[in-house]
Amino acid sequence: MNSMTFVLFGATGDLAKRKIYPALYNLYLDDKLPDSFSVIGLGRREWTNDIFQSSVEQSLESFSRRPLADSAKMEKFLRAFHYHALDVGDTEGYKQLLEVIQQREAELNIPENRLFYLSVAPEFFDIISSNIYASGLGSTKGWKRLIIEKPFGHDLQTARELNANLSRAFEEDEIYRIDHYLGKPMVQNLEALGFANPILQALWNNEYIANVQITASETVGVETRAGYYDQAGAIRDMFQNHMMQMLMMTAMQLPKRISATDIRNEKRKVMDALRLLTKEDVITEVVRGQYTFGEIGAKPVVGYKDEPGIEASSTNDTFIAARLWIDDEFWKDVPFYIRTGKRMHEKSTKIVIEFKNPLKDLYAHEDKETAPNLLVIEVNPDSRVSLQLNSKNPLNDGKLETITIDFSANLDEVPEAYELLIFDALRGDATFFAHWHEVELSWKWVQPVLEAFAENIVPLHPYNAGSMGPEASRELLEQDGFKWW
Amino acid sequence: MNSMTFVLFGATGDLAKRKIYPALYNLYLDDKLPDSFSVIGLGRREWTNDIFQSSVEQSLESFSRRPLADSAKMEKFLRAFHYHALDVGDTEGYKQLLEVIQQREAELNIPENRLFYLSVAPEFFDIISSNIYASGLGSTKGWKRLIIEKPFGHDLQTARELNANLSRAFEEDEIYRIDHYLGKPMVQNLEALGFANPILQALWNNEYIANVQITASETVGVETRAGYYDQAGAIRDMFQNHMMQMLMMTAMQLPKRISATDIRNEKRKVMDALRLLTKEDVITEVVRGQYTFGEIGAKPVVGYKDEPGIEASSTNDTFIAARLWIDDEFWKDVPFYIRTGKRMHEKSTKIVIEFKNPLKDLYAHEDKETAPNLLVIEVNPDSRVSLQLNSKNPLNDGKLETITIDFSANLDEVPEAYELLIFDALRGDATFFAHWHEVELSWKWVQPVLEAFAENIVPLHPYNAGSMGPEASRELLEQDGFKWW
Repeated sequence: MNSMTFVLFGATGDLAKRKIYPALYNLYLDDKLPDSFSVIGLGRREWTNDIFQSSVEQSLESFSRRPLADSAKMEKFLRAFHYHALDVGDTEGYKQLLEVIQQREAELNIPENRLFYLSVAPEFFDIISSNIYASGLGSTKGWKRLIIEKPFGHDLQTARELNANLSRAFEEDEIYRIDHYLGKPMVQNLEALGFANPILQALWNNEYIANVQITASETVGVETRAGYYDQAGAIRDMFQNHMMQMLMMTAMQLPKRISATDIRNEKRKVMDALRLLTKEDVITEVVRGQYTFGEIGAKPVVGYKDEPGIEASSTNDTFIAARLWIDDEFWKDVPFYIRTGKRMHEKSTKIVIEFKNPLKDLYAHEDKETAPNLLVIEVNPDSRVSLQLNSKNPLNDGKLETITIDFSANLDEVPEAYELLIFDALRGDATFFAHWHEVELSWKWVQPVLEAFAENIVPLHPYNAGSMGPEASRELLEQDGFKWW
Repeated sequence: MNSMTFVLFGATGDLAKRKIYPALYNLYLDDKLPDSFSVIGLGRREWTNDIFQSSVEQSLESFSRRPLADSAKMEKFLRAFHYHALDVGDTEGYKQLLEVIQQREAELNIPENRLFYLSVAPEFFDIISSNIYASGLGSTKGWKRLIIEKPFGHDLQTARELNANLSRAFEEDEIYRIDHYLGKPMVQNLEALGFANPILQALWNNEYIANVQITASETVGVETRAGYYDQAGAIRDMFQNHMMQMLMMTAMQLPKRISATDIRNEKRKVMDALRLLTKEDVITEVVRGQYTFGEIGAKPVVGYKDEPGIEASSTNDTFIAARLWIDDEFWKDVPFYIRTGKRMHEKSTKIVIEFKNPLKDLYAHEDKETAPNLLVIEVNPDSRVSLQLNSKNPLNDGKLETITIDFSANLDEVPEAYELLIFDALRGDATFFAHWHEVELSWKWVQPVLEAFAENIVPLHPYNAGSMGPEASRELLEQDGFKWW
């Protein structure tokens, strides 16, 4: 792996402490960092290297999945971290930063490989990227890469503007858009499940699949993020990015080869075939919900409108369910149902493939409609694949019953999403990052939903905290003869 | 369920004690016997009803899977058992038997429903059946049924003769040929697995299946049965009946309805399409083996020729492996490999479906040929279905590994094969009994093998006790690019 400089914007921030430093540290323990590796932490505060290093160490103590190593080993890791104060709006500051980086590169005698990580609020994406370009930071003799966090735009228009701006400083193949759901082992495994298993591959189409259900439910409410969340809603916070990525990973077809380009081409094909909605379609195809008071784990919780920082008049969506169609030869007539929400009954992310059941009446003489076969891929909190089959139960006169055969990984020691993703970015593998096409096409599907919500032409269904969403979500599937599993 | 008389030939014998009485008793506990139910036990010995009843009770103590009930309940069960001494060659004796049965039928005021169970050596099948006919025992005003144990003939010719003889006394649909493998829950479950699961149904053909492997391995040797076994060999003892039945149950197609007639029609279609061998074909398609000394469970055991009662010149087969082809549209080009033997490494009966692996090179860039998908159906000693898939291992840099997702029933309380089969015979359900067509067509496949063995044109491969059979068995699959799983 190439030696490089890791230039981190937002080095004093929460994400850096909770995710980025622990990820780097665990990569270090696994010997997955380049031999010569330098981190330049950037922030507004006037920190010394010592303060920075002890802040990093403290974040590891709090958030690393593995304990701290012995002091020699720790020392070596922390020595790689240097701090530089930067006002992101100050053009001169970037020139000084360039000098600092060049000086470190010279000290370490490493090539000008620079990874810029934007762990900052989205309003700073544009200015940082412009300044990287203008200051010459990006004119490296080695490679340069940009890692950028969500949100990538607030709607289709702003996403396009942001991308146009980033594109002045970075080529598309230099931009690594983090969608941390793509870093989850079971989401990455979707590819292998579908591709490395001929029997699943054979079944992965509309001949055998009745519908696909993708659920990401949270039990938490808006917490301390009212300002952001009330503007974003479930549609922007979860649906446009994570849910759409899981849709693509589930629906994509087998590429000829397994490479970032091939896989992203296949994902794009899914998005190209995704049927777009009119604003009027949103009324029948999308369910908007907002939680009211209820109970989570036997404890009473307040409704969304009573959360601190939320106006009583808010029509923000804390729940979305939608029916999507992919108009290609593989998925024609197979509805994809997607739902996500806060304050739901359980914390769970899973993908359920419901297979067609042409034989359901075969055992009708036993007064038994056979259950459909299900493939359930649990992404979170457990990593698990299970298959629901029908089998005779010898304890019940050989009557048909449903059995579940499943595999669950022992995940105590599994790397976190950020480890996998940062490692991939370090070695230049963009497979599990969101390509601009994916982001743009996803916004394209979402845009009329945003508008229909904004114009309030879609009902806002209340649902009790601790439920699985409003009744309208159940009805959405019932119209097609299905139910959520 | 109809009231009836259960007429048991061989009532003092081993099978009756070990299997039949315990089966009846457990059916009684489960309330699965008719309200009025009478057993007439027949044997040469001059036993009283009391001796008979206490012999039955003793057999339950030794062999019932459930303990004895309280005395009132036991008493009621045992009262149904009456004994009658009969010399099976004595024509007059059958007339007396008829009187005894009629008297019991009158006492209990039940219709003339009679089930004749032939739990005797095969040399008595003919004479008993002739005498049932001649004596008028079979001329009932109710129904009559015959349960008959294996072996059903010694070769094609004798099987046909036996069947012609039985046919004079019983219609085909009155004959219940026991193959106790058809009573094993997982063999019965093959039907449901294939039929009640659309995804398995979709894959159950030559488009997706590379080969099918059916293994029944025993660790025991010839034990005390030298006289019978040295004449029968693995080919008659296991292959012609049990292995062929498992082949049919695995290969049959979905009938329009689930009924005995429909299922047996489908089984017959399999046998009709089974490619017959010439004697010369046997040389390449069948592996004959005989065990030599070795170790079973770390204990030394003698070779077959050193077993008590076996001649040093015996060429008897204690192991068979064979490649079979079903020449129909579903199974064209899919080899079925079947093997069975004594003194093998483990006691196990299982069916392995190996799926085709067109994608095995897809992940070749990871230096990894993907393993084929396998569906493993364990019949014995565990009842278990497992599916081998490929999945990424997040602990190993997301490298592909094989995972097994499986379902195993808690089988402590599962009815024994004889319970299921006797219950079916009592209610007249012949689904899991061998039809004459199946028996005849099975002998037809086996006949040239018997002849090739008798003429010694097929090598007799020695294999060490405790192994999985001779090297030639491995080579049989290797020729096709496969291996035993």
